Amino acid sequence: MQKKQRRMIGGASKMERQQLGGGLGGGLGWNKVVPNASEGVVAVVGVGPGLGAAIARRFARERYIVAILARDLDKLMKLAEEIVEKENEAQVCAIRIDCSDPKSVKEAFEAVNSLGSVEVLVYNPNTPFPWPPPKFTDITAESFERSVMVPCLGAFHCVQQVIKGMVEREKGTLLFTGATASIRGGAGFSEIACGKFALRALAQSLAREYQPQGIHAAHIIVDGKISSPRNQDMPDATMNPDAIAEVYWQVHKQHKSAWTQELDLRPFSEKF
Amino acid sequence: MQKKQRRMIGGASKMERQQLGGGLGGGLGWNKVVPNASEGVVAVVGVGPGLGAAIARRFARERYIVAILARDLDKLMKLAEEIVEKENEAQVCAIRIDCSDPKSVKEAFEAVNSLGSVEVLVYNPNTPFPWPPPKFTDITAESFERSVMVPCLGAFHCVQQVIKGMVEREKGTLLFTGATASIRGGAGFSEIACGKFALRALAQSLAREYQPQGIHAAHIIVDGKISSPRNQDMPDATMNPDAIAEVYWQVHKQHKSAWTQELDLRPFSEKF
Amino acid sequence: MQKKQRRMIGGASKMERQQLGGGLGGGLGWNKVVPNASEGVVAVVGVGPGLGAAIARRFARERYIVAILARDLDKLMKLAEEIVEKENEAQVCAIRIDCSDPKSVKEAFEAVNSLGSVEVLVYNPNTPFPWPPPKFTDITAESFERSVMVPCLGAFHCVQQVIKGMVEREKGTLLFTGATASIRGGAGFSEIACGKFALRALAQSLAREYQPQGIHAAHIIVDGKISSPRNQDMPDATMNPDAIAEVYWQVHKQHKSAWTQELDLRPFSEKF
Amino acid sequence: MQKKQRRMIGGASKMERQQLGGGLGGGLGWNKVVPNASEGVVAVVGVGPGLGAAIARRFARERYIVAILARDLDKLMKLAEEIVEKENEAQVCAIRIDCSDPKSVKEAFEAVNSLGSVEVLVYNPNTPFPWPPPKFTDITAESFERSVMVPCLGAFHCVQQVIKGMVEREKGTLLFTGATASIRGGAGFSEIACGKFALRALAQSLAREYQPQGIHAAHIIVDGKISSPRNQDMPDATMNPDAIAEVYWQVHKQHKSAWTQELDLRPFSEKF
Repeated sequence: MQKKQRRMIGGASKMERQQLGGGLGGGLGWNKVVPNASEGVVAVVGVGPGLGAAIARRFARERYIVAILARDLDKLMKLAEEIVEKENEAQVCAIRIDCSDPKSVKEAFEAVNSLGSVEVLVYNPNTPFPWPPPKFTDITAESFERSVMVPCLGAFHCVQQVIKGMVEREKGTLLFTGATASIRGGAGFSEIACGKFALRALAQSLAREYQPQGIHAAHIIVDGKISSPRNQDMPDATMNPDAIAEVYWQVHKQHKSAWTQELDLRPFSEKF
Repeated sequence: MQKKQRRMIGGASKMERQQLGGGLGGGLGWNKVVPNASEGVVAVVGVGPGLGAAIARRFARERYIVAILARDLDKLMKLAEEIVEKENEAQVCAIRIDCSDPKSVKEAFEAVNSLGSVEVLVYNPNTPFPWPPPKFTDITAESFERSVMVPCLGAFHCVQQVIKGMVEREKGTLLFTGATASIRGGAGFSEIACGKFALRALAQSLAREYQPQGIHAAHIIVDGKISSPRNQDMPDATMNPDAIAEVYWQVHKQHKSAWTQELDLRPFSEKF
Repeated sequence: MQKKQRRMIGGASKMERQQLGGGLGGGLGWNKVVPNASEGVVAVVGVGPGLGAAIARRFARERYIVAILARDLDKLMKLAEEIVEKENEAQVCAIRIDCSDPKSVKEAFEAVNSLGSVEVLVYNPNTPFPWPPPKFTDITAESFERSVMVPCLGAFHCVQQVIKGMVEREKGTLLFTGATASIRGGAGFSEIACGKFALRALAQSLAREYQPQGIHAAHIIVDGKISSPRNQDMPDATMNPDAIAEVYWQVHKQHKSAWTQELDLRPFSEKF
Repeated sequence: MQKKQRRMIGGASKMERQQLGGGLGGGLGWNKVVPNASEGVVAVVGVGPGLGAAIARRFARERYIVAILARDLDKLMKLAEEIVEKENEAQVCAIRIDCSDPKSVKEAFEAVNSLGSVEVLVYNPNTPFPWPPPKFTDITAESFERSVMVPCLGAFHCVQQVIKGMVEREKGTLLFTGATASIRGGAGFSEIACGKFALRALAQSLAREYQPQGIHAAHIIVDGKISSPRNQDMPDATMNPDAIAEVYWQVHKQHKSAWTQELDLRPFSEKF
């Protein structure tokens, strides 16, 4: 594991971080930075500036050690810094992952697991939303294969990396981000829908297999556009990422006698 | 409105309550009892010792004025006292309602509305669960009609009593309790399923009509047995009513840019 | 049972029918009219000039004795004559029914059962489609109750009248007409949706209870407008009633090792 | 295209076939063999001795030229001969396909398209049903990837090969075989469910894109075990492949004003 691949930020003063070389720097550095017991580790896979970052912030606020994972480590580092700025005491570790590459997933989760017990895995793949939707005949096989496999196979790999620990501890939460396309195959959206339907199937299968062992698996259908700098002009029609993240948090906090397997979320103004 | 039909308990010392005659005693008594602004009124229809009482407690804890409604005023009064015992400062009003009688619903909600603005309506009808389930040919027309209509027509009447105020205030939450039978018509469960499917339809229609006007309508599928003194021996297989009530509370608190229309809840151990 | 309530038409020359007085005229007249074994009786409840009549024609063509039932006996009589004109040898009996009145249902099915073994019950309630859809607050309790109960309670009563015979013969088919509103509670459509959701629940419950006893229960979601003289100008957007009726027939004919419980139908041009 | 990869059987006397060298032998030989107009070509992908063969027989009976496709050409040849034996005049062409290999799919469909206009594509992938279902942690990435992709990506490739011709002719039918796992992710069935959910999404997307252009896309959920020599002892619990195939045929024959997008099929005795 090289410094290029992951960076720890937060949980220490800027100076301490600099002393630590700006990276995780091994278990020792880590122990020095975080002397107090935390709530465990949450790994958020697929972190961009919207929902992923909001989920990371939400769990950071609750004293979770937050591993944020995505493909572009530079952007991740910036996000990690933003999270630490907003949430004091946040302990955030930026880790590069390419979900389409099993080796990358494995390495990334070695880093995640080294942070402590993974209590929560949030799988929040970036779903490109082509507009206008392409004709089926214009979709290439490569694009189709990638669109279907990344969400679903990526989730498979990530879950494989954390599930054994959760089973041993009889405790854990798996949260999967769905979309409208998780329950509706629209014209022109076969790529997205195939991947999202498959991810929903995975979430259900995991819930049925692992919930009796104490591991909660939930699928959250985000049925609306998430607010971003690009759509600031339509506040009523878009979803506040912090509002969505709050729901992820609440689902994680559910008592094991009342677990949600699936819920939908949309703006009050949304037609559905 | 007579004292026989509703009783206010809590929000005052026992002596004050006795001075108030043990009942609501008009707006004056009320103002004296509750000098500080509260969060508004939550009306919980269908309150027994399990989920209904837990929901009432959960909202009481947040300084809502809680109206609990059911058919048996004596039992309601006892529940109201228990709620006040558990939640200090709780303001609970017990109001008799017979959901199968439009006149009773109207009178009950005149009392509810007199308590203040109804911010939340929780419709939590008691769903008798016949075991073993009867043969279809053994179901009488009277039983069938009642089983279908009470959940659905009762909800219709209750919503009619609060929706106009919510529309005016552009704010409000409607929460409906569903069950496994809301999405599955099982052998021998035609009575329950017809009523529960219909209630789900109502919740959806209301969501699509009123959410753009700022009123949140959600359907919560309780897919499991709720803990009660009768099933204390199977804690892993039953649902803690407080855990369920917490979810009602969280759904109510959702930001309007991320509203859930439907979610399921079941114990971790439940096969589904 | 009076002549006013049912009329038999077809299966005989016009002269014979006149001799029979234009009505069923008791078992004797019937035997005289239909000397050959038929395929049994199909009862189609809710017969208007569109789908109901088409289903009646489709089964008549297969030598079923067809009982058509609706509220207006005069209109029914005309439809019966039209069926006989289109399908030679058709044996059609028009029987008045008011599905909201248990006594009427019972009497109607005494007439139906007197025609022979009921092999097929088609429950095809007329679903009024209000346009524009009313505001929820403009729906009266009477209208709501009627809209919910007629489809569902009417079906309950009708099934009760035929199911015992089917169980004894270990054979029979129950076909229920659904609509878009069977699976979607749209804004302004709470009345229709509640009734249609409930009917779907009934169909499911009956399937799960009776299919193991040899009785097929299927729910057919008609997700589109049916062609009628009022919409002749939009042939691509409407559904040919004969095309729908063909599907009812095919579902009835399914081998018992491959039964459909639910299917949807819509025009090729329909957005969904 | 080599003889090893496809074989035409039927539609000619044994002697004629021998003269044709036992293979398709080019357009000329074909024209000689089939002088009369047929109903067009149906391509059945995923043909084993059960449902695939039954579908092939059913369409052969209606004078369709039937292309049967699967991986093992020797087994396919035997099936083709059996089909011809059962259905006189059947014209069956056995074509090797490996749905996981785009090049193989392309070559196979060059052969299919050379037979005439493809009116119907039946995509009926062999779904291995592991028993007992494996633990999630015992599933290898290779197995998972293959299980998800073959059904869905294979369907993508096959549809791509026929859809343009259908669009040009404004006519065609796409039939996809689903399973219980298409709508339920069971414990231990993540592999199957992910692939089957994805296939269902594809069928929906295609229906919404192409039905307005005259091409019918339907998803048939086969919710039960299909009869085979291995389960002859439980006739009530298994599905007759001919009974299922009949439904495929009927769905294909549906009038374009009343198209089914999805239906389920199960034995009368099945619990669901």
